[in-house]
Amino acid sequence: MSKLIFGFGDKKAKKIPNSRNILGGKGSNLAEMARLGLPVPPGFTISTKMCEIFYKGNKKLNTKIKAEIKKELKKIESKTKKKFGDNNNPLLVSVRSGSRVSMPGMMDTILNLGLNDTTVEALSKKTENDRFAKDSYRRFIQMYANVVMGVETYHFEEMIDNYKLTKGVLQDTELNSGDWEGLINNFKKLIKEKTNKNFPQDVNEQLFGAINAVFLSWESKRAKTYRKLNQIPSDWGTAVNVQSMVFGNMGNDCATGVAFTRNPSTGENKFFGEYLINAQGEDVVAGSRTPRYITKKAREDAGAKEKSMEETMPKVFKELKNIFLKLEKHYKDMQDIEFTVENKKLWMLQTRNGKRTAKAGIKIAVDMVKEKLISKKEAILRIDANTLDTLLHPTLDEKVEKKVIAKGLPASPGAASGKVVFTADEAERMSNQKEDTILVRLETSPEDIHGMHAAKGILTARGGMTSHAAVVARGMGRPCVSGSAEINIDYESKEFKVGDLVIKEGDTITIDGGSGRVMEGIVPTVKPDISGYFSTIMKWSDDFRKLKIRTNSETPKDTKMARNFGAEGIGLCRTEHMFFEEERILSVRQMIVSKDLDGRKIALERLLPHQKNDFKEIFKIMKGLPVTVRLLDPPLHEFLPKTDKDMEDLARSLNLGVKEIKDRVAELHELNPMLGHRGCRLGISFPEIYEMQCRAIFTALIECKKEKIKSVIPEIMIPLVSTEDELGIMRKLVDEVAKKVQKENNLKLEYFVGTMIELPRAALRAAPISKYADFFSFGTNDLTQTTYGISRDDSGKFLNDYLDHKIFDTDPFVSIDKDGVGELVKIASERGRKNNKKLKLGICGEHGGDPKSIEFCSRAGLNYVSCSPFRVPIAKLAAAQAELRK
Amino acid sequence: MSKLIFGFGDKKAKKIPNSRNILGGKGSNLAEMARLGLPVPPGFTISTKMCEIFYKGNKKLNTKIKAEIKKELKKIESKTKKKFGDNNNPLLVSVRSGSRVSMPGMMDTILNLGLNDTTVEALSKKTENDRFAKDSYRRFIQMYANVVMGVETYHFEEMIDNYKLTKGVLQDTELNSGDWEGLINNFKKLIKEKTNKNFPQDVNEQLFGAINAVFLSWESKRAKTYRKLNQIPSDWGTAVNVQSMVFGNMGNDCATGVAFTRNPSTGENKFFGEYLINAQGEDVVAGSRTPRYITKKAREDAGAKEKSMEETMPKVFKELKNIFLKLEKHYKDMQDIEFTVENKKLWMLQTRNGKRTAKAGIKIAVDMVKEKLISKKEAILRIDANTLDTLLHPTLDEKVEKKVIAKGLPASPGAASGKVVFTADEAERMSNQKEDTILVRLETSPEDIHGMHAAKGILTARGGMTSHAAVVARGMGRPCVSGSAEINIDYESKEFKVGDLVIKEGDTITIDGGSGRVMEGIVPTVKPDISGYFSTIMKWSDDFRKLKIRTNSETPKDTKMARNFGAEGIGLCRTEHMFFEEERILSVRQMIVSKDLDGRKIALERLLPHQKNDFKEIFKIMKGLPVTVRLLDPPLHEFLPKTDKDMEDLARSLNLGVKEIKDRVAELHELNPMLGHRGCRLGISFPEIYEMQCRAIFTALIECKKEKIKSVIPEIMIPLVSTEDELGIMRKLVDEVAKKVQKENNLKLEYFVGTMIELPRAALRAAPISKYADFFSFGTNDLTQTTYGISRDDSGKFLNDYLDHKIFDTDPFVSIDKDGVGELVKIASERGRKNNKKLKLGICGEHGGDPKSIEFCSRAGLNYVSCSPFRVPIAKLAAAQAELRK
Repeated sequence: MSKLIFGFGDKKAKKIPNSRNILGGKGSNLAEMARLGLPVPPGFTISTKMCEIFYKGNKKLNTKIKAEIKKELKKIESKTKKKFGDNNNPLLVSVRSGSRVSMPGMMDTILNLGLNDTTVEALSKKTENDRFAKDSYRRFIQMYANVVMGVETYHFEEMIDNYKLTKGVLQDTELNSGDWEGLINNFKKLIKEKTNKNFPQDVNEQLFGAINAVFLSWESKRAKTYRKLNQIPSDWGTAVNVQSMVFGNMGNDCATGVAFTRNPSTGENKFFGEYLINAQGEDVVAGSRTPRYITKKAREDAGAKEKSMEETMPKVFKELKNIFLKLEKHYKDMQDIEFTVENKKLWMLQTRNGKRTAKAGIKIAVDMVKEKLISKKEAILRIDANTLDTLLHPTLDEKVEKKVIAKGLPASPGAASGKVVFTADEAERMSNQKEDTILVRLETSPEDIHGMHAAKGILTARGGMTSHAAVVARGMGRPCVSGSAEINIDYESKEFKVGDLVIKEGDTITIDGGSGRVMEGIVPTVKPDISGYFSTIMKWSDDFRKLKIRTNSETPKDTKMARNFGAEGIGLCRTEHMFFEEERILSVRQMIVSKDLDGRKIALERLLPHQKNDFKEIFKIMKGLPVTVRLLDPPLHEFLPKTDKDMEDLARSLNLGVKEIKDRVAELHELNPMLGHRGCRLGISFPEIYEMQCRAIFTALIECKKEKIKSVIPEIMIPLVSTEDELGIMRKLVDEVAKKVQKENNLKLEYFVGTMIELPRAALRAAPISKYADFFSFGTNDLTQTTYGISRDDSGKFLNDYLDHKIFDTDPFVSIDKDGVGELVKIASERGRKNNKKLKLGICGEHGGDPKSIEFCSRAGLNYVSCSPFRVPIAKLAAAQAELRK
Repeated sequence: MSKLIFGFGDKKAKKIPNSRNILGGKGSNLAEMARLGLPVPPGFTISTKMCEIFYKGNKKLNTKIKAEIKKELKKIESKTKKKFGDNNNPLLVSVRSGSRVSMPGMMDTILNLGLNDTTVEALSKKTENDRFAKDSYRRFIQMYANVVMGVETYHFEEMIDNYKLTKGVLQDTELNSGDWEGLINNFKKLIKEKTNKNFPQDVNEQLFGAINAVFLSWESKRAKTYRKLNQIPSDWGTAVNVQSMVFGNMGNDCATGVAFTRNPSTGENKFFGEYLINAQGEDVVAGSRTPRYITKKAREDAGAKEKSMEETMPKVFKELKNIFLKLEKHYKDMQDIEFTVENKKLWMLQTRNGKRTAKAGIKIAVDMVKEKLISKKEAILRIDANTLDTLLHPTLDEKVEKKVIAKGLPASPGAASGKVVFTADEAERMSNQKEDTILVRLETSPEDIHGMHAAKGILTARGGMTSHAAVVARGMGRPCVSGSAEINIDYESKEFKVGDLVIKEGDTITIDGGSGRVMEGIVPTVKPDISGYFSTIMKWSDDFRKLKIRTNSETPKDTKMARNFGAEGIGLCRTEHMFFEEERILSVRQMIVSKDLDGRKIALERLLPHQKNDFKEIFKIMKGLPVTVRLLDPPLHEFLPKTDKDMEDLARSLNLGVKEIKDRVAELHELNPMLGHRGCRLGISFPEIYEMQCRAIFTALIECKKEKIKSVIPEIMIPLVSTEDELGIMRKLVDEVAKKVQKENNLKLEYFVGTMIELPRAALRAAPISKYADFFSFGTNDLTQTTYGISRDDSGKFLNDYLDHKIFDTDPFVSIDKDGVGELVKIASERGRKNNKKLKLGICGEHGGDPKSIEFCSRAGLNYVSCSPFRVPIAKLAAAQAELRK
């Protein structure tokens, strides 16, 4: 058996390979800091390997590991000169989880372990602070009872509240040592009552119970949810860190704090942190007390009065500053740090690469290249491409007058509008109904994660920039305003008040996580700024990447935006979207309800000029870049009205009987429209539709030529092909229209014809299909649907079950399924290219904007990916990363 | 360029390889008969190669081929001592189509070609029969004008009818030479009027025009429909036969007839044919005159008075009889023959392998083995497996009293009941609405084919056993009663009368094509007899085949039937079908609307004994043969009521609110149920359902064991798997239930667990999936749907367009798509077997009963196919044929 326990606390801790995987992030970094000579309270890490053994076995610690733990504990005792469970100088420890990647607040932690009815007296004597000792003991009992014994915390909180009521005080700080002593006795009774067990006085029993509980918390519901959201494999497991306690709450020469070596919101190269005097770490993170700034400058900038750490503890501040610099230099990245000051002595409790906003991520990466800390390549690889999304979305239009009703901390940038909801469940429910919401909470907790994910933005009344709400929102890319003390939430009556103003559930508000403002109603937004640091990263990405990035777009607005973001062509122009506009839909419907070819032709004749103009606009914007136009794809019934009323209106407009319309709607109804009369099947049944569309494309080209506008070489794409004959027949149709239009205008035109590969059969038959194709574009949405036999629209009914059972690592509609869909993409690429050397290959499903899928496309040798305009920069970065990782 | 024209008429015609493909059936057999020394009017065949050239070019005969035709014509002239277009002894020819396989009546024919205003006089003089000459001329003009010049026949018929009216006669035979002469002039004027062209007097122009028209008729609508129905490739093309005319209508020493060397309906080894004195061939085939019997015995058996050929022309009859024997010996198959007697001289105009009923086919094949004409292997290969179907369906229950309203000829065996319709279109329309119909027509024509296909049976008032209706119905396996002279059809008022009885459109009748009876209402049926010749063929098939044949069955009734047909196991037992029965559906619905696991478990507990009993029944019947049980597959909403009324009923039955039911129905609604929450996805989400089903299976086994009943080793099949984990999780569930049941009963059970391969991803991932599988069963219905992205339920909207455009050769849901779906089957077989040597492979889609697909399965190395009970014998025969063709 390999080594399962690793001690740390001085420069002697051995460096082990893949230490992060074995010791978890926290344990690995504690050992590393100790090796660097930084002040780290001694302790040991039980490796993730043990977690695996734990879950393979009966979920209990075995005798052997217990013996080893005791052995390691001895080492801490010798380093700290304290003794675990000792009546004179007792060693107290913390027990914390620590997985490979940070999962803030998702697993359990127990502090002050080692206290019992006798050691608490020793602690009291030793610290000469009886209140502190009793307070620590009751905290420990509360935590332990909750985490290990399953007694819910609110029982204890209620007890404290009732006691304060009886005593007529408001604050915990007003309770004295005797008060806590009484409460401790009541706590113990409560535990006995609820669990039929005594609170354990044996410190070893305490320790093993705590370690066991931390391992168990790896599979808690909230940890599993977090892993699902963040795509963390469940077999990684967690390590457990047992570390000697240091106290930030032993008096006014004590403090505790968290800090970032740079600003995690803006990326500015300035220390950024908060601290509290005479407090334990949880007080800062939980947001129950509003913390103070660390640097004087930050305090002054915020106009805060409470003295900064730089001012109250200048010596410790200086020491901290040096440690920050040392850590950044060592880790070559921005660090997120936890520290405690115990009687003026600084202790480092944690360091890790800090989470940051997308904006900060980019700035830090670019700055660090300038500072020669990292290379361009490292900078590119360091940015999470998915997070760029948050930078690309519009921010509030500052020119518009806003009704600002409250202010809070700018906890996570971006602007969002939505209906106010007060519970995570409601946010999720509304999101399922496609309603935008802002989740408003006093403060958030891990139980709220699903609601934070479902909401468009988060507003809290309490908590700082490092509160749960702020950290999680930044990670998710959700705008967040935290600690807006002005708002007064009443969960009961489902409303919040700001002075006299009452905002009820369902009312619309806007929050700006960049400035901390809260506004009534919807505030218009302006385009994002993608210059500066952002454009530097884009430029570097362009230098490294080989994959071309196109966009899916069919409106001039989107097309322009995509061009601004650097799109190098249109990979998917969905012509049917053009059919839905007001002035056209009637002609479309007339075409569909026509009983014969002549009727259809008349309606198509009306559509032609509209469609031609649409294409011309887009061709003009794309100035010579490739534009892939997909001919009509959805089944015709999608264009027909659904309600009786709308059918009556249509009948009136077309001067037809209502029955006629209803009959046609009934006739076109399909049981499985996804697998129905759509795509090139329409082109085969109603060639006149595709003919009109081709004529529109070619006429637009002709007009561009005549008007000397730099036009494009269009790529006409035939959807839903499953046999070579379909494409052969459709290609002939395109060629014939082209011939006619050229002859009519006596001008020569260039164009390509290709097909979507979006059905398994098309992938398998790529060789014969490629005879008729200049290009293949993988429609991975439909290809995923047919390869898996899963309708994306219906998958919600079982997707969560599949993620829970680990059948899916991720939703296959988000990240491409490399094994199944991916094999078909590879088969089609190989067979197609073998047969047609010049075949161009691209992808135009939603996957085209997903970094993992882009990496797959890069390895599969595709020429381009196409994605929605907002994801173009993400795709560019991801393409560069894919190239660099090759 | 290869030779395009081949002469025949004596023993010198050269035998060419693949002559059927080059000369067509008719041409090839004419040459063969001539070589055998039989009397064949001399002529030549223009090969199918020319048809290809014709369609690749401008659809005209080129100069070169015209010259060759003239050259060949010279040879006929020298053989017949007549001259084409000659004023004294003119040669007349027929121009007929002839493709590889017979397409009766589908293409055009022109007779009497070579007549014009001068040659008609020569013919008159030569035959000393002016009326005959003029009648022949007007027939030729009519035919030519219709086929070559596009003037519809009814114009001419109208003219004749009007003329008869004026003259006050009823029959054509009452018109004399002068009458015809007058009509000829009017015909010519009509042609000029309609086409602005003169009827051609140049006999060469006539000939080239006719040949051109015959080639063109290969692509006529009715020919295309016929090819589609009979799966004849359109690139085969037709040959054209130009042959010197002989006349059966030159007087009472002339005759024309058609005959089969054995009875095509029963297979009896007796000549079977009809003839008409003083008639042309078309008179027999078209059914416009009721023909006489050829043999005396047949006439006597039928109780007919009109003398048989054996009696009227004993010498010719004897010659014919010898020719029949010679031809059967030569072709080693039953022959379908056309002949003409011209002034007592017998001429053979056609021989071909005769179409026959399935019953006759089997008898003839078995008899010919006994007669040592063919081997068992040849006998097996000769039977069209698809036709067995007609033998397996029930016939009329003779014990039940029937109200016979009319009698006709037993033209095509089998019984059918349905609503009376009078047009092919109406038959098709009703068939689309799943209504059974009987198509009632005076006589049928090629235009009626789609309606004959759509109807369950055909009844005609005119025509004999070799009429269009009879031939086509036999080919299609549709019951047909022809020539029922008692019925009096009025198309106008949509009814037919038999005496005073009026049967209106929509009334139900039953016909029995085996006896010729027509009955009012629906007559109950009895099981088919599958002993005798049928069982001989089955036995021989069993000797040759290697593929096992299982059946798809879930009821004791079907299971017993399949066993009788020789099924060697159940390949697909769909457990959901068991859910729909009266007493169970309420529990099923209760289970589905339950909000929680406990509610579902209570309902499942109620279902358990029902399902257990179902399995036990089936296990008992299958006595040790393998039974593959598929766990629940369809989405749950399929079991819920659809209408408001039914939902209200359900709410009342379950003591729930209507809203609750409606909400649940709405919640379960899916946009694409085919790709929805079904198959093992249900097992993952609601494992309690599969647990109940497994418990039912295992408990049934235990009971069989305890009762000492020979039971089966069940194969538990998990549907709709796309990943190995799904099967892994489900297999664990099955194993756990098995363990429990075994422990509870202290008995050991044997069982297998496997999966459907019905999604492309499952096929691709067969290697890892096979880790958990004892068997794969290819669900080719769903696999076809997902591979093509076509919903079978919706494919009707474009399937015809796809067949018309030749994108599909056959409906891929009928015959397996070898290129796409087939490749996935092969991939899955290879990858699965490579990983798991013992993996059993089978197929359980509809394709399991399709001979072409069975041949594919045989070549792909599958172990068994499973099909519906009625198709088991077809599958056995097809499997033997596949083996013999290897």
